[in-house]
Amino acid sequence: MSDMLNPCIKAKQAAIKSAASSEQVRNDALKAAAEALLTNKSQIFAANEADLERSRNENLAEPLIKRLKFDDKKLVTVVDGIMSLADMPDPINQTLLARELSPGLELYKVSCPIGVIGIIFESRPDALVQISSLCLKSGNAVLLKGGSEAMLTNKALYDVIYKATVEAGMPGGWMTLLETREEVSEMLKMDSYIDLVVPRGSNQFVKYIMDHSNIPVLGHAEGVCHVYVDESADINKAVPVCVDAKVQYVAVCNAMETLLVHEKTAPAFLPALKRAMEEANVRLLGCEKTRMHIDVQAATDADWDTEYLDYVLSVKVVGSVEEAMDHINTHGSRHTDSILSNNEQNIRKFVSGVDSAGVYVNCSTRFADGYVYGYGAEVGIGTGKIHSRGPVGMEGLLIYKYVLVGNGHKKGDFAPGELEFTHRDLDKDCPYL
Amino acid sequence: MSDMLNPCIKAKQAAIKSAASSEQVRNDALKAAAEALLTNKSQIFAANEADLERSRNENLAEPLIKRLKFDDKKLVTVVDGIMSLADMPDPINQTLLARELSPGLELYKVSCPIGVIGIIFESRPDALVQISSLCLKSGNAVLLKGGSEAMLTNKALYDVIYKATVEAGMPGGWMTLLETREEVSEMLKMDSYIDLVVPRGSNQFVKYIMDHSNIPVLGHAEGVCHVYVDESADINKAVPVCVDAKVQYVAVCNAMETLLVHEKTAPAFLPALKRAMEEANVRLLGCEKTRMHIDVQAATDADWDTEYLDYVLSVKVVGSVEEAMDHINTHGSRHTDSILSNNEQNIRKFVSGVDSAGVYVNCSTRFADGYVYGYGAEVGIGTGKIHSRGPVGMEGLLIYKYVLVGNGHKKGDFAPGELEFTHRDLDKDCPYL
Repeated sequence: MSDMLNPCIKAKQAAIKSAASSEQVRNDALKAAAEALLTNKSQIFAANEADLERSRNENLAEPLIKRLKFDDKKLVTVVDGIMSLADMPDPINQTLLARELSPGLELYKVSCPIGVIGIIFESRPDALVQISSLCLKSGNAVLLKGGSEAMLTNKALYDVIYKATVEAGMPGGWMTLLETREEVSEMLKMDSYIDLVVPRGSNQFVKYIMDHSNIPVLGHAEGVCHVYVDESADINKAVPVCVDAKVQYVAVCNAMETLLVHEKTAPAFLPALKRAMEEANVRLLGCEKTRMHIDVQAATDADWDTEYLDYVLSVKVVGSVEEAMDHINTHGSRHTDSILSNNEQNIRKFVSGVDSAGVYVNCSTRFADGYVYGYGAEVGIGTGKIHSRGPVGMEGLLIYKYVLVGNGHKKGDFAPGELEFTHRDLDKDCPYL
Repeated sequence: MSDMLNPCIKAKQAAIKSAASSEQVRNDALKAAAEALLTNKSQIFAANEADLERSRNENLAEPLIKRLKFDDKKLVTVVDGIMSLADMPDPINQTLLARELSPGLELYKVSCPIGVIGIIFESRPDALVQISSLCLKSGNAVLLKGGSEAMLTNKALYDVIYKATVEAGMPGGWMTLLETREEVSEMLKMDSYIDLVVPRGSNQFVKYIMDHSNIPVLGHAEGVCHVYVDESADINKAVPVCVDAKVQYVAVCNAMETLLVHEKTAPAFLPALKRAMEEANVRLLGCEKTRMHIDVQAATDADWDTEYLDYVLSVKVVGSVEEAMDHINTHGSRHTDSILSNNEQNIRKFVSGVDSAGVYVNCSTRFADGYVYGYGAEVGIGTGKIHSRGPVGMEGLLIYKYVLVGNGHKKGDFAPGELEFTHRDLDKDCPYL
């Protein structure tokens, strides 16, 4: 028997109870978690110090060390986040539709949690707090696996939050921390118990998960984002936006990887771009036409499908907005793509013809983020086409059920020639939630 | 190279164009399809006659022959359906959220089609017309495979609809008819091109598809629906509801397969149930406690997980609403389950604690249907937990994209200490759709 079976069974049972828990219990649990984090901060910081020391000894890269650090400032941020979640209206048990089907037979569509969510997240320990509090607020149970660098910090955070929330009335098993990769592999097989997996690790890992699980996955394996500089673009505005999209944070999924330039814009734009990118230490790779205007290394076919996550940019000259769109729809990853243009018709074509979660006009791709969109916290970013896409907030953890309330109603009474359905929308909430 | 690669590539290209097509083109195409179906009815009826004759010679069961028949009455129904779709508001390009992130930087969440839908449907040829018109209205491309019994009828319907809609401006390849099982197997591998599969065939086939494709599946492999007769139920009302749930149409997914009875209700209820079910030719299988009250065959453990789709019902006595809920959450298929009760507290427990797409109160499970819910046509019924569940109408074919409109906005301007996001909700539509 798999070691993960018991935690999964417990999580599923807890999910049922969580879904039925009152708004007050969930909000009280959030407040108790916030308080407990503050009360137990020295123990959490000590665990973090140990993680930091071990990671420094293992020569972990400095940016990762920075992400791993969990100090007073990060504690205040996550505690503020939990408290504002507690103040938010209840996302579940909301009546989304109320309809009389026939006198006395009333249909209600009501929001509810998805059930059991499996989340694998990167090195930042604050992600554990954010994700578990989103799951708590929305009545979901959660299985969590954090980065191994943050092992002790995650364990300390988990222990504090779990104890506080269960004491405040949440069902035992609503939150489980996994500690090994083997447990994650086991989890991916538990499609009878887990309803959704949200991987936020490396691209290879997300791809591995998508290929090795029957559980629906909300995530993105790649972020090959484009900026297209149209014929009509304002070059003085376009260059800084391109620099921002490329270098404001190179290691993230919403950074630009390929720049497309209209052939009429290329002669004036490309030299200006080259100067600005060289100043920002970006190495350019160009198509043949690009290299007629600027002296850069040749791009290969593989470059158009590559997510560099580095100070590298591939550049291609195109003949029209249609060619740009076709390139994006073929080589992109449906993440975020931007057009820089002053031609309304081309903007309209781009907005309706580019099949990406984010289609941007005259701004940097770097805005694709749940916090930027005002979602408070982000569950993840999805590049799939169903349920939720783009930066996903609480809504990604929700679904609905139909409650039909009758008084002995039988389908046979609605046979042809008998009763007919009235389908009259009602302005009322489901009486049993 | 797979024979399906070309149709899939064409479908994906058509989906991009379809998504960008105007509301008028899509509505004109719907009207053209309706008109063409009426104009070409003799050719369609002739194809149907040939299908009927071949099927009769192959001794196809009479209910299937009835479903296969496509006559004037069915034609009028589908044509009416298409015309009412044409009159409906546009489901895509609707602004679902408009928010200022910063002055001049505005976020719009807009509804859009999912992309390419693969649909496998049962013998009724009218399903082809309904499904393709739903896809057309919502700007999706579709790959269709109907039952082989209806092969010639489906081909005739497809030819007429495809010609009329493409002449009316829809992109070539927006609709493709598959004709063999091999093509379906190939289609299931095309996860780079197909965004959603909706199987409406036999349960075994749906399960096969779920197990053999990386494409998200909207469907139900099983419908093990329950009715729970509570302690407080009105027996005179409960018996007819149970009979309706079992026999009003035994071969469908929303028919009751297991009846749960509270032990205090059992002594009076079970004999009345037995009389009514015997009259309706239903064979009962009971748990030990059931058999203390009525003389029926013993149910085995396997019965609690069996979808009979026949005049058979398993009956179990339970000690509480909690035990009933636990049985349903363990053995059910998250389809539709009903409580018959006059105890508000137990109803509340059942509604929030049963994890099914439909949780019914004092009525038959047979109401779980898109037409009954007022959705016009039904894409399918889903028992998954993400995207759409229960009877799925047009909304199951829709997703959204984010359009962010700026004026040279860069993320770097919002670094700590610089600009802050305003997150002010706006009352306006996306300007570029």
